[in-house]
Amino acid sequence: MIEWEAAQCPQKYQQPMALIAGTLEGSGTQTHIMELVKELGLDTFPQYNIGKKVHHMGGPGARVRTYRNSIPALSPLVLRDLTQFLWKIDRLCATVRVEDPSKTPNAVELDSVTLHSYTEKHVWTAELKEELALCSRSVFGMEPSQMSFLFFLMYAAAAGGLLPLLENTAGSAQEFKIKGGTQQLSECLAERVGLRNVRLRAAVTAIWQDAEWARVTIAAAGAAATFSCRAAIVTCPPHLAAKIHYDPALPSRREFLTQNMPVGHMIKFIITYQTAFWKEKGFSGEIVAGSSTDCPFCVTFDATSPGGNAALVGFIAGRQASQWGSKEAGQRRNAVVSSLVKYLGPEAASFIHFEERDWAAEAYSGGCPVNVMAPGLLTYYHPSLRKPCGRIYWAGTETATQWCGYMSGAVQAGERAALEVLAELRPTGLEPEE
Amino acid sequence: MIEWEAAQCPQKYQQPMALIAGTLEGSGTQTHIMELVKELGLDTFPQYNIGKKVHHMGGPGARVRTYRNSIPALSPLVLRDLTQFLWKIDRLCATVRVEDPSKTPNAVELDSVTLHSYTEKHVWTAELKEELALCSRSVFGMEPSQMSFLFFLMYAAAAGGLLPLLENTAGSAQEFKIKGGTQQLSECLAERVGLRNVRLRAAVTAIWQDAEWARVTIAAAGAAATFSCRAAIVTCPPHLAAKIHYDPALPSRREFLTQNMPVGHMIKFIITYQTAFWKEKGFSGEIVAGSSTDCPFCVTFDATSPGGNAALVGFIAGRQASQWGSKEAGQRRNAVVSSLVKYLGPEAASFIHFEERDWAAEAYSGGCPVNVMAPGLLTYYHPSLRKPCGRIYWAGTETATQWCGYMSGAVQAGERAALEVLAELRPTGLEPEE
Repeated sequence: MIEWEAAQCPQKYQQPMALIAGTLEGSGTQTHIMELVKELGLDTFPQYNIGKKVHHMGGPGARVRTYRNSIPALSPLVLRDLTQFLWKIDRLCATVRVEDPSKTPNAVELDSVTLHSYTEKHVWTAELKEELALCSRSVFGMEPSQMSFLFFLMYAAAAGGLLPLLENTAGSAQEFKIKGGTQQLSECLAERVGLRNVRLRAAVTAIWQDAEWARVTIAAAGAAATFSCRAAIVTCPPHLAAKIHYDPALPSRREFLTQNMPVGHMIKFIITYQTAFWKEKGFSGEIVAGSSTDCPFCVTFDATSPGGNAALVGFIAGRQASQWGSKEAGQRRNAVVSSLVKYLGPEAASFIHFEERDWAAEAYSGGCPVNVMAPGLLTYYHPSLRKPCGRIYWAGTETATQWCGYMSGAVQAGERAALEVLAELRPTGLEPEE
Repeated sequence: MIEWEAAQCPQKYQQPMALIAGTLEGSGTQTHIMELVKELGLDTFPQYNIGKKVHHMGGPGARVRTYRNSIPALSPLVLRDLTQFLWKIDRLCATVRVEDPSKTPNAVELDSVTLHSYTEKHVWTAELKEELALCSRSVFGMEPSQMSFLFFLMYAAAAGGLLPLLENTAGSAQEFKIKGGTQQLSECLAERVGLRNVRLRAAVTAIWQDAEWARVTIAAAGAAATFSCRAAIVTCPPHLAAKIHYDPALPSRREFLTQNMPVGHMIKFIITYQTAFWKEKGFSGEIVAGSSTDCPFCVTFDATSPGGNAALVGFIAGRQASQWGSKEAGQRRNAVVSSLVKYLGPEAASFIHFEERDWAAEAYSGGCPVNVMAPGLLTYYHPSLRKPCGRIYWAGTETATQWCGYMSGAVQAGERAALEVLAELRPTGLEPEE
């Protein structure tokens, strides 16, 4: 295992790195979720990222490297390749119209190729290709072959650029965690709505509409119930929204949309220890491993909560989830622990508890973390993403234009859909209040 | 309008054309449907293809060409480009394992790019690119951007090559029609099964399974009914099978599969006339028009039935269906008729009747003619295509390995699924009869 410091990077690559750091500082932040967190009186704490990060690419026998900065331990050649790639992506991102990607210059061509095709053409080094496949897997739970390049650009643009998606530093996707866990968001919101108004363990099976009402049928523990309302907001991801029976049927453009938005596949695990031995050894707990290695997961982070157990969290994603998801739980756990021992030392074998969750195995999740768009969708069917269908309105993070795919996007989308409903339902004959 | 005969083709391109003709003669034929047609006592008649074919590519102002052979009126350069492309595709098709495409050499790479990306890389002329987009539209109801290149190869391989998909000559997709119409196939089969055993206008909404039974719930005109059986064969296309509620839930690999198989979009029209004036003028009735022209349809054929009205059938497909599908019916009809007048003469304006069908507008069709596979699907989730889920078996033309996407494929798939069920249900302890 060798350590690779930014200082080792030759002088001529210092400038691109400063440029990258500059991009980060200027990036957007997750304002919608942060406002909600504040409103609900919750506290955040930063993702722990002090110490050495582990980086393993290029096959099972390749050297395991460590680094301390936000730039991985890449050779000068790969670093140059990365800098150029980021520059190209940032330039393209700046041209994307997130609200209507079909208006992006050259949209049809950008939407006709996969992210894989783009990187094959514009990335020179095998290591950076592996690195980008890993990013795709850890951000989307998908391989670069499975999504439209225009979708990828739109997703990055909605986050303020590509780097904010990938980093855990200021202004980026993984910057903060919520003290006590993110489930408090749902719990606090449910309390505000009134717990008696929230139905849990009840699946919406059908939505019927007529001139007066939307009627929502739910199936709960064998019994069905129907609720009548003036408007319904569907917040579940597109592949689940597609399973609801709509009467009258939704417009075909909406159906084509949901047929072209597959969800990612990620298995999350949390492993707890008596002590955060990795911190004592100078590691941050962040490990990234390419699919060419024999490591089942693509990424881990420190997950020690304030006052709680020492823990690491990690993800088995994309083709690795497809491959490992069908194996026995014990086999998966042993493979994860072996890799942790390899990267962090023999202490990793003495864990207290290993917990995993494969959302794909849950009928009403079906996957995670987000639905992507297959090639050719944005060009032809994107306008149906947020367009209400009669009394049915669409929310969910996939419909967001800022931090699409993240909790912040879900909040933005919910607020937008709520405003649409309020505007529609205001008493006729009255002007909206100033 | 100029006529372009094969004889005009320079000597050095005669050989590739012979090669193409050779491919056709050796192609597979639609044996499964032909056997069923024979068994049911139905008659076929060949698709009328005598006379000049109209060919319009390269923009609204481009010359409208006509030709008589199976090779379109292409310039020597485009013809050479086509010959090379067909040669490459045929070579690749020969390597595809239709039963398990993930075993094809280089499968991951072939499945990571769209058909569009492949043609951008391997086709030199803009005209051939337009030609191939038209083929994609008329065969799949989709743009080349919307499907995996490996899927395209598998589909062609299942038909015996690319040319059989595109032609209406011996051994190819559009060779025969059924006297009296293809609906007779369903009618005759329903009679054999017993009409009282066939439920029409009844949608399957749920399939429940336990150790003993599969229970199929259908919703018909407001009332629901449940049928218990030992095995259920689901024959509807993947995007509709995905809408059925399964309890217990299907394995996630099957769900990922249906999320990645969008259906095509085609609007079919039939226009009838007092006389087949096009035949009198030496036209076959076949028109192909690229999307760069102002013609709404991509292809028409003669559809005069024996002893019936003179008629033409045509298709508005892919991005043209997306564009024209949302317009008024009258506007669509006028655009179709204008184009027919332009290509076949002023007689086309005096039609008797214009009938169209947009299957995308029907809730229980949702599109046509076939579901394709988005990039990245075949590599990871293809094994779930035909794999039974407990007491549920999968048929439908998308699951066929010969003439996948065609009626012949549907028959092959149905026979395969029926055999699977028979093998499973045979009394235990008994050996199958010799």
